[in-house]
Amino acid sequence: MLKVAILGGSGYTGSELLRLLLTHPNAEVTAVTSERLSGLLISDTFLHFRNTSLKFESLDLKTLTKKADLFFLCLPHKTSQETVAFLYNAGKKVIDLSADYRLKSAEVYKEWYKIPHLYSPLLKKAVYGLPEIYRKKIKNASIIANPGCYPTSAILGIAPIIGENFINTNSIIVDSKSGTSGAGRSPAQPFMFCEVNESVKAYAVTAHRHTPEIEQELSSISKKRINIIFTPHLIPMDRGILSTIYVRLKKKISLSDIHKLYHVFYRNEPFVRVLKNGMYPSTKVVKGSNYCDISVFLDKRSGKGQTLIILSVIDNLLKGASGTAVHNMNIMHGFDETAGLVSSSASP
Amino acid sequence: MLKVAILGGSGYTGSELLRLLLTHPNAEVTAVTSERLSGLLISDTFLHFRNTSLKFESLDLKTLTKKADLFFLCLPHKTSQETVAFLYNAGKKVIDLSADYRLKSAEVYKEWYKIPHLYSPLLKKAVYGLPEIYRKKIKNASIIANPGCYPTSAILGIAPIIGENFINTNSIIVDSKSGTSGAGRSPAQPFMFCEVNESVKAYAVTAHRHTPEIEQELSSISKKRINIIFTPHLIPMDRGILSTIYVRLKKKISLSDIHKLYHVFYRNEPFVRVLKNGMYPSTKVVKGSNYCDISVFLDKRSGKGQTLIILSVIDNLLKGASGTAVHNMNIMHGFDETAGLVSSSASP
Amino acid sequence: MLKVAILGGSGYTGSELLRLLLTHPNAEVTAVTSERLSGLLISDTFLHFRNTSLKFESLDLKTLTKKADLFFLCLPHKTSQETVAFLYNAGKKVIDLSADYRLKSAEVYKEWYKIPHLYSPLLKKAVYGLPEIYRKKIKNASIIANPGCYPTSAILGIAPIIGENFINTNSIIVDSKSGTSGAGRSPAQPFMFCEVNESVKAYAVTAHRHTPEIEQELSSISKKRINIIFTPHLIPMDRGILSTIYVRLKKKISLSDIHKLYHVFYRNEPFVRVLKNGMYPSTKVVKGSNYCDISVFLDKRSGKGQTLIILSVIDNLLKGASGTAVHNMNIMHGFDETAGLVSSSASP
Amino acid sequence: MLKVAILGGSGYTGSELLRLLLTHPNAEVTAVTSERLSGLLISDTFLHFRNTSLKFESLDLKTLTKKADLFFLCLPHKTSQETVAFLYNAGKKVIDLSADYRLKSAEVYKEWYKIPHLYSPLLKKAVYGLPEIYRKKIKNASIIANPGCYPTSAILGIAPIIGENFINTNSIIVDSKSGTSGAGRSPAQPFMFCEVNESVKAYAVTAHRHTPEIEQELSSISKKRINIIFTPHLIPMDRGILSTIYVRLKKKISLSDIHKLYHVFYRNEPFVRVLKNGMYPSTKVVKGSNYCDISVFLDKRSGKGQTLIILSVIDNLLKGASGTAVHNMNIMHGFDETAGLVSSSASP
Repeated sequence: MLKVAILGGSGYTGSELLRLLLTHPNAEVTAVTSERLSGLLISDTFLHFRNTSLKFESLDLKTLTKKADLFFLCLPHKTSQETVAFLYNAGKKVIDLSADYRLKSAEVYKEWYKIPHLYSPLLKKAVYGLPEIYRKKIKNASIIANPGCYPTSAILGIAPIIGENFINTNSIIVDSKSGTSGAGRSPAQPFMFCEVNESVKAYAVTAHRHTPEIEQELSSISKKRINIIFTPHLIPMDRGILSTIYVRLKKKISLSDIHKLYHVFYRNEPFVRVLKNGMYPSTKVVKGSNYCDISVFLDKRSGKGQTLIILSVIDNLLKGASGTAVHNMNIMHGFDETAGLVSSSASP
Repeated sequence: MLKVAILGGSGYTGSELLRLLLTHPNAEVTAVTSERLSGLLISDTFLHFRNTSLKFESLDLKTLTKKADLFFLCLPHKTSQETVAFLYNAGKKVIDLSADYRLKSAEVYKEWYKIPHLYSPLLKKAVYGLPEIYRKKIKNASIIANPGCYPTSAILGIAPIIGENFINTNSIIVDSKSGTSGAGRSPAQPFMFCEVNESVKAYAVTAHRHTPEIEQELSSISKKRINIIFTPHLIPMDRGILSTIYVRLKKKISLSDIHKLYHVFYRNEPFVRVLKNGMYPSTKVVKGSNYCDISVFLDKRSGKGQTLIILSVIDNLLKGASGTAVHNMNIMHGFDETAGLVSSSASP
Repeated sequence: MLKVAILGGSGYTGSELLRLLLTHPNAEVTAVTSERLSGLLISDTFLHFRNTSLKFESLDLKTLTKKADLFFLCLPHKTSQETVAFLYNAGKKVIDLSADYRLKSAEVYKEWYKIPHLYSPLLKKAVYGLPEIYRKKIKNASIIANPGCYPTSAILGIAPIIGENFINTNSIIVDSKSGTSGAGRSPAQPFMFCEVNESVKAYAVTAHRHTPEIEQELSSISKKRINIIFTPHLIPMDRGILSTIYVRLKKKISLSDIHKLYHVFYRNEPFVRVLKNGMYPSTKVVKGSNYCDISVFLDKRSGKGQTLIILSVIDNLLKGASGTAVHNMNIMHGFDETAGLVSSSASP
Repeated sequence: MLKVAILGGSGYTGSELLRLLLTHPNAEVTAVTSERLSGLLISDTFLHFRNTSLKFESLDLKTLTKKADLFFLCLPHKTSQETVAFLYNAGKKVIDLSADYRLKSAEVYKEWYKIPHLYSPLLKKAVYGLPEIYRKKIKNASIIANPGCYPTSAILGIAPIIGENFINTNSIIVDSKSGTSGAGRSPAQPFMFCEVNESVKAYAVTAHRHTPEIEQELSSISKKRINIIFTPHLIPMDRGILSTIYVRLKKKISLSDIHKLYHVFYRNEPFVRVLKNGMYPSTKVVKGSNYCDISVFLDKRSGKGQTLIILSVIDNLLKGASGTAVHNMNIMHGFDETAGLVSSSASP
């Protein structure tokens, strides 16, 4: 059994990781940290986890390095910077769910996160943990920068065609709709029930920090510099992201050819499902599962050529965070890739 | 007091109209029809309306023409075609909330609604009832084609700039998110609570019937043939539409100049509010009111120039249906335009 | 026009009061306080109130007494104690929406609120502002203790029969289900969207502070010492309280006789509606309105006699708080009792 | 591998069973029926089940008896009557999720379900499938009458004390709050999103068909004739039932003694968790799991002695239906009792 620790286990991604790892056939959770809840039984705090006798403990890295070999970090960005560095230097493997090691450029990091990156040499060591794109690198990585939730849905939706010369790479729009768990578990008025319920709004228009992450990866896959428009929206539900992606085409191409591209691209992927022609993905269908469901439509109405409309859905806490983290662990340690991730979603 | 009748009063738009008209200072509801509920007291069916002694009655046009001078039609399309014609020929004024008289071209109507328009000469008599655009024509109209909910949010969002030569009219994308009341009140599995709740999905991609309606009006305002991409989404809430609209610019222009255009365009409008720079509209803020709130953002990241991102929110049952119907009545009959529509929304 | 001020205008009851008073035909809002938002335009904070140029101001009582004649207090309990006293001594009328002047006994207050009441002589001056019970006293009161939300639904449900000798006054159970706005607007983890959504739970079982308030009023009406069991529950919706009330009968009595008692008791009340036999009240039907809907059922299954089941619904922010506050103002100042409160609820 | 079939697989309990059984280590689903969807791939209808190549088939019992050894029936009551009889006579084992074999008395069945029971001799063969009460009988049963959702939460909440002489068995009130999936998947206006959302209401007061089922089982456990008051409520969420149960005590007893009784009663049960003193169960904590969480409180305020308040929560589709069905299968076939049911719930 692989000994794993979760640093920052009191939030939504941390507790979701714990849920997955407590029943994982190849991993044993040996430590979970939380400064706020330190000393309390996990089973008294999260009443749904009553089969564990673990207590939350404080983030004491020296003690922790003796307890586990793989560390999942669900810490705020900035705190993650140094924690990753410490664990790396101690010879541990790290899967970092924060944004700290996702951007390859320390300058871009500073521009969007407004703080310097103090461990920039390590950025080269970190592998962007999107299995469908970087499976081989993940296998041998010591530091995994686990992808953001919006980027996962956007990149998986666009990856199969971003390198094709029939698309206009100057025109990509990602309009995403997210449930509220993406905002985290710390109390804040905008995320109170009565503020979110019965409402929809956009936020961080032209300014969301996941923008450079999506651009970096699309640029890397296509080997072109790509800028996108990304607009996130908050909708009244717990989990789920639907990204509606608009890509203009430079040449005519048939929908069935595009479908073929998607099917081939994902044909061996355990967690990406390309829907049949005309079927609509919904977040409910992937809720509680590690799947990304994708559907593609072609519009001919808008002027000068065609537009591709790609619909991509994930559960933001699973495929968009903790599920992919476990997937990465499985790849790194040679476990069955779907170990601990097989549950299909429930409906309703 | 103007005598008004509501034909088709058992659905959501019908009952919302009834709510508005029962307390309207200048109108008196003299008849409400429903085939299904005919003979029942309205107050026994809709428990929130207990201050009326009206009963639902059957749709007997000869009887009805003696009871009222203005008719609100909340009937299914196709049924509306002939009912409008009958009432028009009987010298009555009609506000038709169906789609039957919105499209000026009988051919386009047939293409999208899959049935012929049997009263096409009347299409010329009908005025598209969007007060901000057609106030003068509405004043003298006998037939009002009350706008669709999505078109209202889209057209009001784009109208101030659609005629400007700095925008690329070939590139307009309208990505709309709607509450569930837009789907109406008839039982259908996709709109059952457990299907809609905790989920978001797109539907009718490239194929929604509001597409030609938006295109007709944008073309008419700009005097250019305009095609758009329109993608509706269903989200788990009762009321509200947020349209996120993307328009590419051909030339550089400042955000403050665009703001100025919007402020000038709507400066005398009682029901359109252009938000201050950087503020986000939300459907909750307009829920229960007749307002359309609009905000404009400028993105410079996507390739080759700038993109305008317009956010436009309405309550689909009020500004997107019954509120505008009452607004049209007020204009047609010289009442105060805001009569019966003053209530601001409640929060939460 | 009566000049009114709202002290504590940034929460849900404060903003709901503001909504009602901004369109009230006989009142003019001259000041709204909020320490946190002091200096900001109300219309910039609450985007749904854009027809006012008022700014939030600080709670400076000397300045405020010059601005208004009637004060609505939406302050936390304890703060209300001294503010009420100051305003009373300054000759102003006060409607206090906190709990500070509801309990007639300073000892009971201390027992449940864990702080002493420093102005206990004023408790005798305060009138419990439930119009259906205390209309005459309200007319001449200077201090109104506006009832709590749960007590309003419970007392109105039980009042018509509490004095009858056919009920067992030792057996009353009030099982209440409340929307989340009752918890207020301050950020707290238990009321975050993802904690409340898709869940139901009881809280404060045997220990909720509204218990002595309900008991005091039922004891006062029946002239017996009455203790009840009160169990509040939190459910995932914005507004509304449903109280399911169980009362054992000592003698046989017919349902129609009980209905008669309720109808007679409320026959002249503008805001209480006793439903027809067999009809079910729902919170949606009263949402956004000042109505209390009541329905009564009789069960014969449980041992030793019959049990009455009373269902009582209100909108907790209106009939359960701000609506009743305005109703009290109307009574105190001789306005039409329904002024500013006529809107029926919308559905959905 | 045990071959199992699901008869009536298109509703919520049927699809939830399918979800559980598709990953069950000891069972293989060989047939799923649906008249409406017959011939369609399950994976095209329920997009969350794409790892199966099964098609829905018609309910042809002769064909089906060759395909499986254990049958789960998710059919409407009445249809279940004869289907159970046919399968029993064919030597098959049956777990019936309808109400047809729950009531031991054909007369009581007819009184509440308004149709005669045509196979009343079989009622004696059927075992009420509540594992915590009837584990031994379940082991050898051929027909399992799988308990109703409300009865499961109510009986498990009351069972530990119903036989004790310190309670007043004439006074039991069960006030239950249920999510909407309990109403099934067939389209009906009262369960449309916009009708259920943002509302709470009671229904079937004094008349719900689960009443005699609860009474039968409590009578059987206590060996006394017990009648209860049962009031179900519909709340706006997908899944979950909270039953708030009121039981008057005849003698004084301490809360810790009562806790002890509960802990002892359930000490070996894998799916019932008695919470620590003062902790509140919530439906969210059991959502997606097979747990029943129970908490007990003692109130001393109401007249003449004490009242016990028991809070009991389950996921109505799992512990209240399909989870218990799988639990029963596990017991009947000697599998590990928790096989296929280990997943803890996710939060949020």
